Amino acid sequence: MELTPIMDPEALNRFLETDFPQLHKDGKVFEVMAVGPGTVTMRLMPNDRHLRPGGTISGPTLFSLADVGAWCAVLAHIGPVALAVTTNLNINFLRKPAPGPLSCTCRLLKLGKRLAVVDASIFDADGEDLVAHATATYSIPPR
Amino acid sequence: MELTPIMDPEALNRFLETDFPQLHKDGKVFEVMAVGPGTVTMRLMPNDRHLRPGGTISGPTLFSLADVGAWCAVLAHIGPVALAVTTNLNINFLRKPAPGPLSCTCRLLKLGKRLAVVDASIFDADGEDLVAHATATYSIPPR
Amino acid sequence: MELTPIMDPEALNRFLETDFPQLHKDGKVFEVMAVGPGTVTMRLMPNDRHLRPGGTISGPTLFSLADVGAWCAVLAHIGPVALAVTTNLNINFLRKPAPGPLSCTCRLLKLGKRLAVVDASIFDADGEDLVAHATATYSIPPR
Amino acid sequence: MELTPIMDPEALNRFLETDFPQLHKDGKVFEVMAVGPGTVTMRLMPNDRHLRPGGTISGPTLFSLADVGAWCAVLAHIGPVALAVTTNLNINFLRKPAPGPLSCTCRLLKLGKRLAVVDASIFDADGEDLVAHATATYSIPPR
Repeated sequence: MELTPIMDPEALNRFLETDFPQLHKDGKVFEVMAVGPGTVTMRLMPNDRHLRPGGTISGPTLFSLADVGAWCAVLAHIGPVALAVTTNLNINFLRKPAPGPLSCTCRLLKLGKRLAVVDASIFDADGEDLVAHATATYSIPPR
Repeated sequence: MELTPIMDPEALNRFLETDFPQLHKDGKVFEVMAVGPGTVTMRLMPNDRHLRPGGTISGPTLFSLADVGAWCAVLAHIGPVALAVTTNLNINFLRKPAPGPLSCTCRLLKLGKRLAVVDASIFDADGEDLVAHATATYSIPPR
Repeated sequence: MELTPIMDPEALNRFLETDFPQLHKDGKVFEVMAVGPGTVTMRLMPNDRHLRPGGTISGPTLFSLADVGAWCAVLAHIGPVALAVTTNLNINFLRKPAPGPLSCTCRLLKLGKRLAVVDASIFDADGEDLVAHATATYSIPPR
Repeated sequence: MELTPIMDPEALNRFLETDFPQLHKDGKVFEVMAVGPGTVTMRLMPNDRHLRPGGTISGPTLFSLADVGAWCAVLAHIGPVALAVTTNLNINFLRKPAPGPLSCTCRLLKLGKRLAVVDASIFDADGEDLVAHATATYSIPPR
């Protein structure tokens, strides 16, 4: 399966800002850092809202990072017109992250006409420890 | 499997308020409405933060509702002392909900010494349409 | 969501026998027992192949029971013509079953034009203990 | 996370043969091909039982390959004494494989004291197409 992205990080970030302004209500939280064949890397800069007592990042924040990152991996390859919708997301929480930036590497496992399946791995700032791992499915409307 | 809850809705809501104040940063969003043998029903009162363009409730909000509800179902039966941690959550998004209150019915499928598994069904305000369905696993620390 | 089945247990069992003979290579293992609005109940009669040392039923057998049962729940409502394909199955193993018959209750959570989502609960012979719980998604080809 | 395997392919295959003889009832179906730090590669040689009409390999066979492979990845790092049990397995079926040998690459995402999480990718004989992808959790008994 050879995949060729048709959106670059700048185009994806602009699309997030204009079409999903609520993602950035408290400053720039999500940012696409890199796009490659079948892949997208997204960074999360957490603020107080994303933290939990004991100094860690909340589960819903990790879910959001995996979902937004995986969704951008789909859009990067089909363009911003098509409205892909999350139908399933399975997430394993592996290690409690420290309250700092996180990085999410997303990889298309399948890009079909109707369904896309994406693997998302969330790493801490050092890129050493795997914090969470998700697999998500998106329904792609008829083009 | 006979399950007897040891916390009522009032005790669970008080625990959420004192130990997870960030859940209520924008007003009372999550509220336990009912507790039964093996079950907890939680209500979500969404605000602007939880909405998405096109007039629906965001995926991370549905994730949070399932996770907080399922977690309360565990706590209701083991008490607020033990710190249960989400290890896995699988969610299927079934129908786009209208931007109003949602209800989440959580049911313990297993309450073991080390692991608890909970089924969470999210309904719209009328209680007619199933909006999302999740299954979550919690690791229970040694008591 | 009102669902009306269009195949009864006899029609589903006949379809399994003619179109999936390999399911019955060692005798009648899977049998649809009941069909209702949005639901199918399937029974497994295990043989030596399905057992594991220590006297329990193998994981792949539980997976098969959930998958065949959930798939029959879809077919019961769309008919045997359409070829539905499993795209995702998430299963939680809850209790080791004794080596006897099992019963699987399947319930349609969603029956869309393109995707169906089914909840499958596997009980032991007494119908008291929940042995495993699965959620499965099926892709429905254009009709 | 640095992981050092303590069993090699020969030891794992011998363990499968002696402790799980029913896996080989119809000849040598499952075979560990390689072991590395945090990884195990397993090969499936399908027979008639694993095929489906239309010339593909059955879903339960793919499930078994992912489960046995991921389980061996855990055993390779904790030894054959501990009895790890599958608690959750989430599988996405991506492409229908042709009826030939398959290869499953398993990677430990986490090896904790109580839980191990493994990623399993199933490829066709050429190693080019990803046929299915699974994530599995194993409960590790106290040592």
